[in-house]
Amino acid sequence: MAHDTVQNSMRINTKDILVRQSLFAKASESLLENFVQAATVKTLRKGEALFLQGEDADAFYIVLSGWIKLFRETLDGHEAVIDMLTNGHIFGESATLEDGIYSFGAEAIEDVRVLRLPSAILKKAITDDNGMALAMLTSLSRHRKQQTREIESLTLQNASQRIGCFLLRLCHRDDPGPIELKLPYDKSLIAARLGMKSETFSRALNKLRDETGISVKGATVVIPTLQTMSRFSCSACSNEFPCDDMH
Amino acid sequence: MAHDTVQNSMRINTKDILVRQSLFAKASESLLENFVQAATVKTLRKGEALFLQGEDADAFYIVLSGWIKLFRETLDGHEAVIDMLTNGHIFGESATLEDGIYSFGAEAIEDVRVLRLPSAILKKAITDDNGMALAMLTSLSRHRKQQTREIESLTLQNASQRIGCFLLRLCHRDDPGPIELKLPYDKSLIAARLGMKSETFSRALNKLRDETGISVKGATVVIPTLQTMSRFSCSACSNEFPCDDMH
Repeated sequence: MAHDTVQNSMRINTKDILVRQSLFAKASESLLENFVQAATVKTLRKGEALFLQGEDADAFYIVLSGWIKLFRETLDGHEAVIDMLTNGHIFGESATLEDGIYSFGAEAIEDVRVLRLPSAILKKAITDDNGMALAMLTSLSRHRKQQTREIESLTLQNASQRIGCFLLRLCHRDDPGPIELKLPYDKSLIAARLGMKSETFSRALNKLRDETGISVKGATVVIPTLQTMSRFSCSACSNEFPCDDMH
Repeated sequence: MAHDTVQNSMRINTKDILVRQSLFAKASESLLENFVQAATVKTLRKGEALFLQGEDADAFYIVLSGWIKLFRETLDGHEAVIDMLTNGHIFGESATLEDGIYSFGAEAIEDVRVLRLPSAILKKAITDDNGMALAMLTSLSRHRKQQTREIESLTLQNASQRIGCFLLRLCHRDDPGPIELKLPYDKSLIAARLGMKSETFSRALNKLRDETGISVKGATVVIPTLQTMSRFSCSACSNEFPCDDMH
Protein backbone atom coordinates (compact mmCIF):
# COMPACT_ATOMS: atom_id res chain seq x y z
CA MET A 1 0.00 0.00 0.00
CA ALA A 2 2.70 2.43 1.05
CA HIS A 3 4.57 1.51 -2.12
CA ASP A 4 1.50 2.20 -4.20
CA THR A 5 1.03 5.64 -2.71
CA VAL A 6 4.63 6.59 -3.40
CA GLN A 7 4.29 5.33 -6.93
CA ASN A 8 1.12 7.27 -7.44
CA SER A 9 2.58 10.50 -6.15
CA MET A 10 5.64 10.02 -8.36
CA ARG A 11 3.37 9.41 -11.34
CA ILE A 12 1.49 12.63 -10.69
CA ASN A 13 4.75 14.53 -10.35
CA THR A 14 6.13 13.29 -13.65
CA LYS A 15 2.96 14.25 -15.45
CA ASP A 16 2.97 17.69 -13.80
CA ILE A 17 6.55 18.24 -14.86
CA LEU A 18 5.74 17.23 -18.42
CA VAL A 19 2.68 19.43 -18.92
CA ARG A 20 4.56 22.46 -17.64
CA GLN A 21 6.71 22.13 -20.80
CA SER A 22 5.18 23.96 -23.76
CA LEU A 23 6.17 20.90 -25.81
CA PHE A 24 3.71 18.74 -23.87
CA ALA A 25 1.08 21.33 -22.93
CA LYS A 26 -1.43 19.87 -25.39
CA ALA A 27 -0.18 16.27 -25.39
CA SER A 28 -2.76 13.47 -25.28
CA GLU A 29 -3.40 11.60 -22.04
CA SER A 30 -2.08 8.39 -23.57
CA LEU A 31 1.19 9.99 -24.63
CA LEU A 32 1.67 11.49 -21.16
CA GLU A 33 0.92 8.08 -19.65
CA ASN A 34 3.53 6.45 -21.91
CA PHE A 35 6.12 8.94 -20.74
CA VAL A 36 5.14 8.55 -17.09
CA GLN A 37 5.62 4.77 -17.39
CA ALA A 38 9.01 5.11 -19.07
CA ALA A 39 10.44 8.09 -17.17
CA THR A 40 13.29 7.57 -14.71
CA VAL A 41 15.02 9.96 -12.36
CA LYS A 42 18.79 10.12 -12.70
CA THR A 43 21.14 11.75 -10.22
CA LEU A 44 24.56 13.02 -11.15
CA ARG A 45 27.46 14.12 -8.99
CA LYS A 46 29.27 17.39 -9.66
CA GLY A 47 31.47 16.96 -12.73
CA GLU A 48 29.73 13.83 -13.94
CA ALA A 49 28.85 13.60 -17.64
CA LEU A 50 25.28 12.78 -18.62
CA PHE A 51 26.16 12.17 -22.25
CA LEU A 52 28.91 13.07 -24.68
CA GLN A 53 28.85 14.88 -27.99
CA GLY A 54 28.47 12.31 -30.78
CA GLU A 55 26.71 9.67 -28.67
CA ASP A 56 23.42 8.10 -29.74
CA ALA A 57 20.56 10.25 -28.47
CA ASP A 58 18.37 7.57 -26.94
CA ALA A 59 16.89 9.94 -24.35
CA PHE A 60 16.07 13.57 -23.65
CA TYR A 61 15.94 15.23 -20.24
CA ILE A 62 14.23 17.77 -18.00
CA VAL A 63 16.30 19.24 -15.16
CA LEU A 64 14.71 18.70 -11.72
CA SER A 65 17.41 20.39 -9.63
CA GLY A 66 20.94 21.73 -10.00
CA TRP A 67 22.78 23.14 -13.01
CA ILE A 68 23.73 21.28 -16.18
CA LYS A 69 26.31 22.55 -18.65
CA LEU A 70 25.87 21.89 -22.40
CA PHE A 71 29.13 22.14 -24.27
CA ARG A 72 31.08 21.31 -27.41
CA GLU A 73 34.70 20.26 -27.26
CA THR A 74 37.27 21.41 -29.80
CA LEU A 75 40.02 19.30 -31.34
CA ASP A 76 42.62 21.10 -29.22
CA GLY A 77 40.70 20.37 -26.02
CA HIS A 78 38.91 23.63 -25.33
CA GLU A 79 35.27 23.82 -24.45
CA ALA A 80 32.53 26.06 -25.82
CA VAL A 81 29.71 26.35 -23.31
CA ILE A 82 26.56 26.33 -25.44
CA ASP A 83 24.07 26.67 -22.61
CA MET A 84 23.58 26.38 -18.84
CA LEU A 85 20.29 24.86 -17.71
CA THR A 86 18.45 24.41 -14.45
CA ASN A 87 15.01 23.48 -13.01
CA GLY A 88 12.38 22.98 -15.68
CA HIS A 89 14.71 23.23 -18.67
CA ILE A 90 14.40 20.55 -21.33
CA PHE A 91 17.32 19.42 -23.47
CA GLY A 92 18.38 16.74 -25.95
CA GLU A 93 14.92 16.62 -27.50
CA SER A 94 15.96 18.02 -30.86
CA ALA A 95 18.61 15.32 -31.38
CA THR A 96 15.63 13.02 -31.87
CA LEU A 97 14.94 14.73 -35.14
CA GLU A 98 17.76 14.67 -37.57
CA ASP A 99 20.41 12.04 -37.10
CA GLY A 100 19.66 10.85 -33.56
CA ILE A 101 23.05 11.95 -32.27
CA TYR A 102 23.78 14.51 -29.55
CA SER A 103 25.47 17.53 -31.11
CA PHE A 104 26.79 18.58 -27.67
CA GLY A 105 27.80 17.01 -24.37
CA ALA A 106 26.01 17.52 -21.03
CA GLU A 107 27.73 17.62 -17.66
CA ALA A 108 26.59 18.32 -14.08
CA ILE A 109 28.36 21.36 -12.60
CA GLU A 110 26.93 20.51 -9.17
CA ASP A 111 24.81 17.65 -7.81
CA VAL A 112 21.96 17.34 -10.26
CA ARG A 113 18.68 15.45 -10.70
CA VAL A 114 17.18 15.01 -14.14
CA LEU A 115 14.11 13.29 -15.50
CA ARG A 116 15.14 10.90 -18.27
CA LEU A 117 12.62 10.35 -21.08
CA PRO A 118 13.10 7.93 -23.99
CA SER A 119 13.57 9.60 -27.40
CA ALA A 120 11.74 6.74 -29.12
CA ILE A 121 8.41 7.73 -27.53
CA LEU A 122 8.84 11.34 -28.63
CA LYS A 123 9.83 10.30 -32.13
CA LYS A 124 6.77 8.10 -32.49
CA ALA A 125 4.50 10.82 -31.10
CA ILE A 126 5.79 13.36 -33.60
CA THR A 127 5.35 10.94 -36.47
CA ASP A 128 1.85 9.82 -35.45
CA ASP A 129 0.35 13.05 -34.11
CA ASN A 130 0.47 16.30 -36.02
CA GLY A 131 -0.33 18.29 -32.87
CA MET A 132 2.90 17.01 -31.33
CA ALA A 133 4.85 17.79 -34.50
CA LEU A 134 3.53 21.36 -34.37
CA ALA A 135 4.38 21.69 -30.68
CA MET A 136 7.90 20.51 -31.46
CA LEU A 137 8.14 23.04 -34.30
CA THR A 138 7.12 25.87 -31.98
CA SER A 139 9.63 24.76 -29.38
CA LEU A 140 12.45 24.50 -31.93
CA SER A 141 11.70 27.85 -33.48
CA ARG A 142 11.79 29.47 -30.04
CA HIS A 143 15.24 27.93 -29.49
CA ARG A 144 16.29 29.20 -32.86
CA LYS A 145 15.28 32.76 -32.02
CA GLN A 146 17.25 32.56 -28.79
CA GLN A 147 20.30 31.39 -30.69
CA THR A 148 19.95 34.19 -33.23
CA ARG A 149 19.91 36.64 -30.33
CA GLU A 150 22.97 34.92 -28.88
CA ILE A 151 24.88 35.29 -32.16
CA GLU A 152 23.90 38.94 -32.25
CA SER A 153 25.12 39.43 -28.70
CA LEU A 154 28.47 37.73 -29.34
CA THR A 155 28.88 39.84 -32.45
CA LEU A 156 27.92 43.28 -31.20
CA GLN A 157 27.94 43.57 -27.42
CA ASN A 158 31.25 44.16 -25.71
CA ALA A 159 32.25 41.98 -22.75
CA SER A 160 30.89 44.39 -20.10
CA GLN A 161 27.56 44.67 -21.89
CA ARG A 162 27.30 40.88 -22.14
CA ILE A 163 27.83 40.58 -18.37
CA GLY A 164 25.25 43.35 -17.81
CA CYS A 165 22.77 41.50 -20.03
CA PHE A 166 23.40 38.28 -18.09
CA LEU A 167 22.73 40.08 -14.77
CA LEU A 168 19.59 41.79 -16.09
CA ARG A 169 18.15 38.39 -16.96
CA LEU A 170 18.46 37.40 -13.28
CA CYS A 171 16.36 40.40 -12.22
CA HIS A 172 12.64 40.86 -12.21
CA ARG A 173 11.68 43.54 -14.72
CA ASP A 174 9.45 45.36 -12.22
CA ASP A 175 11.92 45.51 -9.34
CA PRO A 176 12.56 49.20 -8.56
CA GLY A 177 16.03 48.44 -7.10
CA PRO A 178 18.49 48.38 -5.47
CA ILE A 179 18.46 44.68 -6.38
CA GLU A 180 20.58 42.15 -4.56
CA LEU A 181 21.10 38.88 -6.38
CA LYS A 182 23.22 35.75 -6.14
CA LEU A 183 25.22 34.61 -9.15
CA PRO A 184 23.70 31.25 -10.12
CA TYR A 185 27.05 29.50 -10.67
CA ASP A 186 30.81 30.04 -10.68
CA LYS A 187 32.25 33.19 -12.25
CA SER A 188 34.54 31.04 -14.42
CA LEU A 189 31.47 29.29 -15.82
CA ILE A 190 29.66 32.57 -16.37
CA ALA A 191 32.72 33.74 -18.30
CA ALA A 192 32.67 30.56 -20.41
CA ARG A 193 28.91 30.86 -20.96
CA LEU A 194 29.42 34.41 -22.23
CA GLY A 195 32.29 33.35 -24.48
CA MET A 196 35.11 35.09 -22.57
CA LYS A 197 38.39 34.11 -20.99
CA SER A 198 38.53 34.56 -17.21
CA GLU A 199 40.88 37.56 -17.47
CA THR A 200 38.55 39.28 -19.93
CA PHE A 201 35.65 38.60 -17.58
CA SER A 202 37.42 40.20 -14.59
CA ARG A 203 38.40 43.30 -16.56
CA ALA A 204 34.91 43.61 -18.06
CA LEU A 205 33.26 43.21 -14.66
CA ASN A 206 35.42 46.04 -13.27
CA LYS A 207 34.43 48.24 -16.18
CA LEU A 208 30.76 47.37 -15.61
CA ARG A 209 31.15 48.37 -11.96
CA ASP A 210 32.60 51.76 -12.97
CA GLU A 211 29.88 52.38 -15.54
CA THR A 212 26.80 51.28 -13.61
CA GLY A 213 27.70 51.46 -9.91
CA ILE A 214 27.06 47.79 -9.20
CA SER A 215 28.88 46.15 -6.29
CA VAL A 216 30.19 42.61 -6.35
CA LYS A 217 31.16 40.65 -3.24
CA GLY A 218 31.82 36.97 -3.84
CA ALA A 219 28.69 35.62 -5.47
CA THR A 220 26.52 38.56 -4.36
CA VAL A 221 25.83 41.40 -6.77
CA VAL A 222 23.93 44.58 -5.94
CA ILE A 223 22.49 46.56 -8.85
CA PRO A 224 21.46 50.14 -7.88
CA THR A 225 18.81 50.56 -10.62
CA LEU A 226 17.73 48.51 -13.60
CA GLN A 227 17.58 51.68 -15.64
CA THR A 228 21.30 52.51 -15.45
CA MET A 229 22.11 48.87 -16.12
CA SER A 230 19.83 48.55 -19.12
CA ARG A 231 20.94 51.88 -20.57
CA PHE A 232 24.53 50.63 -20.54
CA SER A 233 23.93 47.01 -21.62
CA CYS A 234 21.03 47.16 -24.04
CA SER A 235 22.24 49.89 -26.38
CA ALA A 236 24.22 47.39 -28.46
CA CYS A 237 21.26 45.01 -28.75
CA SER A 238 18.24 44.95 -31.02
CA ASN A 239 15.81 44.22 -28.19
CA GLU A 240 14.51 47.04 -26.09
CA PHE A 241 14.59 46.50 -22.33
CA PRO A 242 12.77 44.63 -20.86
CA CYS A 243 13.39 41.57 -23.07
CA ASP A 244 10.44 39.33 -23.81
CA ASP A 245 12.30 36.40 -22.27
CA MET A 246 12.89 38.17 -18.93
CA HIS A 247 10.99 37.27 -15.76
CA MET B 1 0.15 30.56 -77.43
CA ALA B 2 3.55 32.08 -76.88
CA HIS B 3 2.29 33.38 -73.58
CA ASP B 4 1.16 29.89 -72.60
CA THR B 5 4.53 28.39 -73.35
CA VAL B 6 6.32 30.97 -71.27
CA GLN B 7 3.91 30.34 -68.43
CA ASN B 8 4.42 26.62 -68.69
CA SER B 9 8.18 26.87 -68.61
CA MET B 10 7.97 29.21 -65.62
CA ARG B 11 5.71 26.77 -63.83
CA ILE B 12 8.15 23.94 -64.36
CA ASN B 13 10.99 26.09 -63.11
CA THR B 14 9.23 27.07 -59.92
CA LYS B 15 8.43 23.46 -59.18
CA ASP B 16 12.03 22.44 -59.86
CA ILE B 17 13.28 25.13 -57.53
CA LEU B 18 10.90 23.98 -54.80
CA VAL B 19 11.68 20.27 -54.91
CA ARG B 20 15.41 20.99 -54.70
CA GLN B 21 14.70 22.27 -51.16
CA SER B 22 14.78 19.47 -48.58
CA LEU B 23 11.68 21.11 -47.09
CA PHE B 24 9.69 20.29 -50.23
CA ALA B 25 11.46 17.13 -51.39
CA LYS B 26 8.51 14.95 -50.40
CA ALA B 27 5.74 17.53 -50.79
CA SER B 28 2.48 16.45 -52.43
CA GLU B 29 1.77 17.40 -56.05
CA SER B 30 -1.17 19.53 -54.95
CA LEU B 31 0.92 21.51 -52.47
CA LEU B 32 3.59 22.13 -55.09
CA GLU B 33 0.88 23.21 -57.52
CA ASN B 34 -0.51 25.68 -54.94
CA PHE B 35 2.91 27.21 -54.52
CA VAL B 36 3.52 27.35 -58.27
CA GLN B 37 0.25 29.26 -58.70
CA ALA B 38 1.07 31.72 -55.92
CA ALA B 39 4.81 32.20 -56.44
CA THR B 40 6.10 35.48 -57.78
CA VAL B 41 9.58 36.58 -58.75
CA LYS B 42 10.82 39.75 -57.09
CA THR B 43 13.87 41.73 -58.14
CA LEU B 44 15.77 44.00 -55.79
CA ARG B 45 18.43 46.59 -56.47
CA LYS B 46 21.65 46.69 -54.48
CA GLY B 47 20.90 48.08 -51.01
CA GLU B 48 17.15 47.57 -51.27
CA ALA B 49 15.37 46.02 -48.26
CA LEU B 50 13.16 42.99 -48.84
CA PHE B 51 11.65 43.17 -45.36
CA LEU B 52 12.46 44.66 -41.98
CA GLN B 53 12.85 43.09 -38.56
CA GLY B 54 9.49 43.16 -36.78
CA GLU B 55 7.35 43.17 -39.94
CA ASP B 56 4.53 40.68 -40.49
CA ALA B 57 5.97 37.57 -42.12
CA ASP B 58 3.45 37.09 -44.91
CA ALA B 59 5.96 35.42 -47.22
CA PHE B 60 9.14 33.38 -47.31
CA TYR B 61 11.76 33.38 -50.05
CA ILE B 62 14.23 31.35 -52.08
CA VAL B 63 17.19 33.23 -53.59
CA LEU B 64 17.40 32.84 -57.39
CA SER B 65 20.49 35.01 -57.94
CA GLY B 66 22.68 37.48 -56.06
CA TRP B 67 23.43 37.80 -52.35
CA ILE B 68 20.99 38.68 -49.58
CA LYS B 69 22.07 39.85 -46.13
CA LEU B 70 20.03 38.87 -43.05
CA PHE B 71 20.65 41.20 -40.14
CA ARG B 72 19.44 42.54 -36.82
CA GLU B 73 19.73 46.19 -35.95
CA THR B 74 20.66 47.38 -32.46
CA LEU B 75 19.16 50.32 -30.60
CA ASP B 76 22.31 52.36 -31.19
CA GLY B 77 22.17 51.72 -34.94
CA HIS B 78 24.72 48.96 -35.43
CA GLU B 79 24.03 45.86 -37.45
CA ALA B 80 24.63 42.21 -36.63
CA VAL B 81 24.87 40.19 -39.83
CA ILE B 82 23.10 36.94 -39.02
CA ASP B 83 23.60 35.25 -42.37
CA MET B 84 24.51 35.82 -46.02
CA LEU B 85 22.51 33.81 -48.53
CA THR B 86 22.68 33.14 -52.25
CA ASN B 87 21.25 30.84 -54.99
CA GLY B 88 19.04 28.11 -53.62
CA HIS B 89 18.95 29.36 -50.03
CA ILE B 90 15.56 29.57 -48.35
CA PHE B 91 14.75 32.12 -45.64
CA GLY B 92 11.88 33.57 -43.64
CA GLU B 93 10.10 30.21 -43.51
CA SER B 94 10.50 29.77 -39.75
CA ALA B 95 8.78 33.09 -38.98
CA THR B 96 5.65 31.30 -40.14
CA LEU B 97 5.77 29.22 -37.01
CA GLU B 98 5.74 31.18 -33.84
CA ASP B 99 4.46 34.72 -33.94
CA GLY B 100 4.41 35.37 -37.69
CA ILE B 101 6.93 38.19 -37.41
CA TYR B 102 10.35 38.40 -39.02
CA SER B 103 13.01 38.29 -36.32
CA PHE B 104 15.58 39.81 -38.72
CA GLY B 105 15.68 42.11 -41.72
CA ALA B 106 16.72 41.10 -45.27
CA GLU B 107 18.54 43.37 -47.72
CA ALA B 108 20.04 42.90 -51.18
CA ILE B 109 23.79 43.56 -51.20
CA GLU B 110 23.81 43.44 -55.00
CA ASP B 111 21.10 43.07 -57.64
CA VAL B 112 19.05 40.12 -56.49
CA ARG B 113 16.19 37.92 -57.70
CA VAL B 114 14.11 35.98 -55.20
CA LEU B 115 11.13 33.67 -55.45
CA ARG B 116 8.38 34.91 -53.13
CA LEU B 117 6.10 32.25 -51.59
CA PRO B 118 3.10 33.00 -49.34
CA SER B 119 3.54 31.93 -45.71
CA ALA B 120 -0.17 31.08 -45.45
CA ILE B 121 0.20 28.13 -47.83
CA LEU B 122 3.13 26.75 -45.85
CA LYS B 123 1.31 27.24 -42.56
CA LYS B 124 -1.75 25.36 -43.82
CA ALA B 125 0.43 22.57 -45.24
CA ILE B 126 2.21 22.07 -41.92
CA THR B 127 -1.09 22.00 -40.05
CA ASP B 128 -2.82 19.63 -42.47
CA ASP B 129 0.00 17.30 -43.44
CA ASN B 130 2.22 15.62 -40.89
CA GLY B 131 4.82 14.82 -43.56
CA MET B 132 5.27 18.54 -44.15
CA ALA B 133 5.48 19.21 -40.40
CA LEU B 134 8.24 16.61 -40.14
CA ALA B 135 10.10 18.08 -43.13
CA MET B 136 9.90 21.49 -41.47
CA LEU B 137 11.22 19.99 -38.21
CA THR B 138 14.19 18.47 -40.01
CA SER B 139 14.92 21.74 -41.75
CA LEU B 140 14.69 23.74 -38.51
CA SER B 141 16.87 21.34 -36.58
CA ARG B 142 19.53 21.56 -39.28
CA HIS B 143 19.46 25.34 -38.94
CA ARG B 144 19.73 24.98 -35.20
CA LYS B 145 22.83 22.81 -35.51
CA GLN B 146 24.43 25.38 -37.79
CA GLN B 147 23.69 28.11 -35.27
CA THR B 148 25.16 26.05 -32.42
CA ARG B 149 28.31 25.69 -34.51
CA GLU B 150 28.29 29.43 -35.16
CA ILE B 151 28.07 30.20 -31.43
CA GLU B 152 30.94 27.80 -30.83
CA SER B 153 33.02 29.48 -33.50
CA LEU B 154 32.35 33.00 -32.15
CA THR B 155 33.25 31.76 -28.68
CA LEU B 156 36.42 29.79 -29.36
CA GLN B 157 38.01 30.55 -32.72
CA ASN B 158 40.19 33.61 -32.98
CA ALA B 159 39.62 36.10 -35.80
CA SER B 160 42.23 34.52 -38.13
CA GLN B 161 40.78 31.06 -37.59
CA ARG B 162 37.29 32.34 -38.35
CA ILE B 163 38.50 33.79 -41.66
CA GLY B 164 40.31 30.52 -42.42
CA CYS B 165 37.11 28.60 -41.70
CA PHE B 166 35.16 30.93 -44.00
CA LEU B 167 37.68 30.37 -46.82
CA LEU B 168 37.71 26.59 -46.33
CA ARG B 169 33.96 26.53 -46.85
CA LEU B 170 34.47 28.07 -50.29
CA CYS B 171 36.81 25.21 -51.30
CA HIS B 172 36.01 21.75 -52.51
CA ARG B 173 37.16 19.24 -49.95
CA ASP B 174 38.95 17.09 -52.55
CA ASP B 175 40.86 19.88 -54.27
CA PRO B 176 44.60 19.09 -53.90
CA GLY B 177 45.56 22.78 -54.21
CA PRO B 178 46.85 25.36 -54.82
CA ILE B 179 43.28 26.65 -54.87
CA GLU B 180 42.38 29.99 -56.37
CA LEU B 181 39.04 31.39 -55.28
CA LYS B 182 37.05 34.60 -55.50
CA LEU B 183 35.63 36.13 -52.33
CA PRO B 184 31.85 35.97 -52.75
CA TYR B 185 31.22 39.51 -51.50
CA ASP B 186 32.89 42.61 -50.06
CA LYS B 187 35.57 42.20 -47.38
CA SER B 188 33.66 44.60 -45.13
CA LEU B 189 30.63 42.29 -45.34
CA ILE B 190 32.75 39.20 -44.70
CA ALA B 191 34.07 40.96 -41.60
CA ALA B 192 30.53 41.75 -40.44
CA ARG B 193 29.38 38.20 -41.21
CA LEU B 194 32.24 36.87 -39.04
CA GLY B 195 31.43 39.32 -36.25
CA MET B 196 34.54 41.52 -36.59
CA LYS B 197 35.28 45.17 -37.10
CA SER B 198 37.05 46.00 -40.37
CA GLU B 199 40.37 46.75 -38.60
CA THR B 200 40.26 43.41 -36.79
CA PHE B 201 39.55 41.70 -40.10
CA SER B 202 42.58 43.29 -41.81
CA ARG B 203 44.94 42.39 -38.97
CA ALA B 204 43.56 38.85 -38.76
CA LEU B 205 43.87 38.35 -42.52
CA ASN B 206 47.53 39.41 -42.35
CA LYS B 207 48.13 36.93 -39.56
CA LEU B 208 46.39 34.19 -41.55
CA ARG B 209 48.67 34.97 -44.50
CA ASP B 210 51.75 34.62 -42.29
CA GLU B 211 50.53 31.37 -40.76
CA THR B 212 49.26 29.58 -43.86
CA GLY B 213 51.01 31.15 -46.86
CA ILE B 214 47.82 32.27 -48.58
CA SER B 215 47.97 35.21 -50.95
CA VAL B 216 45.24 37.82 -51.27
CA LYS B 217 44.91 40.22 -54.23
CA GLY B 218 41.69 42.20 -54.29
CA ALA B 219 38.93 39.62 -54.21
CA THR B 220 41.21 36.75 -55.29
CA VAL B 221 42.65 34.40 -52.70
CA VAL B 222 45.13 31.61 -53.37
CA ILE B 223 45.39 28.84 -50.78
CA PRO B 224 48.53 26.66 -51.19
CA THR B 225 47.08 23.54 -49.54
CA LEU B 226 43.88 22.74 -47.68
CA GLN B 227 45.94 20.82 -45.14
CA THR B 228 47.91 23.80 -43.82
CA MET B 229 44.76 25.87 -43.77
CA SER B 230 42.67 23.30 -41.92
CA ARG B 231 45.47 22.56 -39.45
CA PHE B 232 45.52 26.24 -38.52
CA SER B 233 41.78 26.97 -38.60
CA CYS B 234 40.14 23.77 -37.38
CA SER B 235 42.10 23.17 -34.17
CA ALA B 236 39.79 25.46 -32.18
CA CYS B 237 36.66 23.78 -33.52
CA SER B 238 34.84 20.61 -32.52
CA ASN B 239 34.41 19.44 -36.13
CA GLU B 240 37.21 17.61 -37.84
CA PHE B 241 38.10 18.78 -41.32
CA PRO B 242 36.35 18.31 -43.73
CA CYS B 243 33.08 19.58 -42.23
CA ASP B 244 29.92 17.75 -43.11
CA ASP B 245 28.46 20.95 -44.55
CA MET B 246 31.39 21.52 -46.97
CA HIS B 247 31.07 20.93 -50.71
